Amino acid sequence: MKVVKFGGSSLSSGEQLKKVFEIVVSDPERKVVVVSAPGKRSSDDIKVTDLLISCAERVIEGKDPGILIEAVAERYRSIANEAGIQGDIAAKIKENLLDLLSQSNKDPERLMEAVKASGEDQNARLVAEYFQSRGVNAAYINPGKAGLIVSDEPGNAQVLPESYNQLMSLREHEGIIIFPGFFGYSADGNIVTFSRSGSDITGSILANGLKADVYENFTDVDAVYAVNPGIVEKPEEIRELTYREMRELSYAGFSVFHDEALMPAFRAGIPVHVKNTNNPASPGTRIVSQRLNKNGPVVGIAADKGFCSIYVSKYLMNREIGFGRRLLQILEEFQISYEHLPSGIDDISVILRQDQLSPSIEKEILERIQSELGADEVKIMYDLSLIMVVGEGMRCNIGTMARASRALARAGVNIEMINQGSSEVSMMFGVNETDERKAVKAIYEEFFISIKV
Amino acid sequence: MKVVKFGGSSLSSGEQLKKVFEIVVSDPERKVVVVSAPGKRSSDDIKVTDLLISCAERVIEGKDPGILIEAVAERYRSIANEAGIQGDIAAKIKENLLDLLSQSNKDPERLMEAVKASGEDQNARLVAEYFQSRGVNAAYINPGKAGLIVSDEPGNAQVLPESYNQLMSLREHEGIIIFPGFFGYSADGNIVTFSRSGSDITGSILANGLKADVYENFTDVDAVYAVNPGIVEKPEEIRELTYREMRELSYAGFSVFHDEALMPAFRAGIPVHVKNTNNPASPGTRIVSQRLNKNGPVVGIAADKGFCSIYVSKYLMNREIGFGRRLLQILEEFQISYEHLPSGIDDISVILRQDQLSPSIEKEILERIQSELGADEVKIMYDLSLIMVVGEGMRCNIGTMARASRALARAGVNIEMINQGSSEVSMMFGVNETDERKAVKAIYEEFFISIKV
Repeated sequence: MKVVKFGGSSLSSGEQLKKVFEIVVSDPERKVVVVSAPGKRSSDDIKVTDLLISCAERVIEGKDPGILIEAVAERYRSIANEAGIQGDIAAKIKENLLDLLSQSNKDPERLMEAVKASGEDQNARLVAEYFQSRGVNAAYINPGKAGLIVSDEPGNAQVLPESYNQLMSLREHEGIIIFPGFFGYSADGNIVTFSRSGSDITGSILANGLKADVYENFTDVDAVYAVNPGIVEKPEEIRELTYREMRELSYAGFSVFHDEALMPAFRAGIPVHVKNTNNPASPGTRIVSQRLNKNGPVVGIAADKGFCSIYVSKYLMNREIGFGRRLLQILEEFQISYEHLPSGIDDISVILRQDQLSPSIEKEILERIQSELGADEVKIMYDLSLIMVVGEGMRCNIGTMARASRALARAGVNIEMINQGSSEVSMMFGVNETDERKAVKAIYEEFFISIKV
Repeated sequence: MKVVKFGGSSLSSGEQLKKVFEIVVSDPERKVVVVSAPGKRSSDDIKVTDLLISCAERVIEGKDPGILIEAVAERYRSIANEAGIQGDIAAKIKENLLDLLSQSNKDPERLMEAVKASGEDQNARLVAEYFQSRGVNAAYINPGKAGLIVSDEPGNAQVLPESYNQLMSLREHEGIIIFPGFFGYSADGNIVTFSRSGSDITGSILANGLKADVYENFTDVDAVYAVNPGIVEKPEEIRELTYREMRELSYAGFSVFHDEALMPAFRAGIPVHVKNTNNPASPGTRIVSQRLNKNGPVVGIAADKGFCSIYVSKYLMNREIGFGRRLLQILEEFQISYEHLPSGIDDISVILRQDQLSPSIEKEILERIQSELGADEVKIMYDLSLIMVVGEGMRCNIGTMARASRALARAGVNIEMINQGSSEVSMMFGVNETDERKAVKAIYEEFFISIKV
């Protein structure tokens, strides 16, 4: 049995809806379909969810959301018409939305949650109706009824463990289930939305709860690429990726997934299959717990900007028990999290995301390090980029570092910092932001284009 | 003006003493001579200091040190005879030693300190006498009289700041000063010895106090070598080395100097010149504050065994503010100092000297990390060797890492860990101890033998 999730772009129009239908019915294993709200039809289009947020905002501000409500209804109407669904479903949707918005006596936050969630909810009803109109046994299922219970943290709901067993009973359900993504219900019946990529989270939770054989995640790219296509043209597609590799890549700003969204599936050991709604024939990318190490030691390369390094030096530091701990203590008091701690004998650097620092906080921190730790020198270096080279094959492959660093040298990139030795599936290079693209290109060419050594 | 220090092997015999004399008088700038106790004449010989320690031990145990006292006197006698010094100086030395040992009412620790120090003290008197016998204006100077005041920490004396100004007055002294190394006097007049390489410390303090132009350190090697001659045959001699390079090298078990011994000279910016008593014509090695980056980015390679790595992994570790600090806190409670902290997203490794761990401490630490930090996995890896590749030229030299790691790859050495990015003058590789020699050889060949890239 497969849980299948479709993103907003896969459901942005009637044409897309037809594709979704064909995909689902082409495989009897596809029993559970998780849907997002209709996304953009073109780059200058507006997502239904964004229209809904504006609606709610206006109501909360006491303004008339008239035109916006029309715009929402219109989106659904055009989808319904294109898909050839009988009856004025858009009218029903509009009615429901007006009904929702009229409860403006509600706590504004609750109102916002309910209105946001309605995008997925209405769309699931529409999709179910369309499937039925095509003569298929399909039904909308409400997350609350299905037992998807979450913590009451608006915009950041966490699934509660009991949900999994409750969702299991969906397996008994006859026909195809159309399930709205992005939200669940709190113990006392409030609608609460997940964080970003909320529909991915819903699909992931269902895959776990229903013990699916695979979680298919349909989006609008053929596969996860080995490197950002914005940096390298037509990069290699990754056929298979482990959870660990996925996580290390998404850490460094690799965009495909917000990796935590997939955790419920990962925890249950369920493979995630990324496929393209617009090209279902393409093999896509499978994210699994283990893979055979094909195609070289490196599977992907990611990079992320906006890091800085606080350099601290003090003679005989390495003799001073507690120095590092006291340094981290100071940062902790400012609620600052760090990424790495390369250290020499008499010096240590703390690499962290620089958006955590303001001029005043920086000043305070540097002063405290100077005075409390008696440092000989404290300085800060901004605008570093961390480049993550990821692959399960790396650990046991002698020479990977040599190849990567040689590639950087050839490209004339100076390595500010290397972090290798803890993670078994990645190595990280710190370079100046200005060198990032050059560096990523060079490493990609070394491992994906030049003949493998 | 030069402060010149001679090690034990440079003063082990009358023949050696003659060499020392020639070296000192050949340069009128050599005004202050710091001497060690007579060292070994051959590998199976016994140092005078070791004889003296045994003497003191016997006396403390209430045993008769007879033969040992004879052995000590005999060493001095043979030196005096070989050097052709008139009068029975050995008798005088024996007398002084007996006198010292007779004060067995003294606190044993004090007795031991005084007896140990007498090796240098008596030798300084002997050397002075020899210089005089050669018609040179030379005099023994007592550290206490000269104002070398130290903290009262037997075996680990620390020079007190006031000493420097007091020693300055030695500049007024006519003729050559023969100064015993290894000890000073506490404020209340006790003899207190320095830690290991104590005579190096004395010379370094005098160089600082007298604002010498250079501190010449005469030993029995032609120079500081770029790598351990036990690993590479006839390695390249280092002509010039900065303090920072010296320190990074000695950190990783590079034996020439206990780097802290040179600190007083370093702090005053006084160059240290390492030369060979048995081959004074050889240029030796200069240790300076700054050098021009000649001969490639790497100046030396050192390695040290006996490290282990504690690996800790936990999902979402990098979000958890305080994780690293709490990890270090646990180690700190066991008074364990660590060397490096390579970290991934969800994992961190602590590299430390494994002799700090006993099976029971290890067990306790791993359990606490597991329970208190809720780690997903904790494991320990033993018998790592850290290889330090050192050079001021490294920082600005693109491709050094590429060359070093390529050399290791060629040699079939797997890199367990890399630490680069904090120290500006070194990079460090962690490898299995079994690969140490292979690794050091390979890096040496890359930077010192193959044509420079």
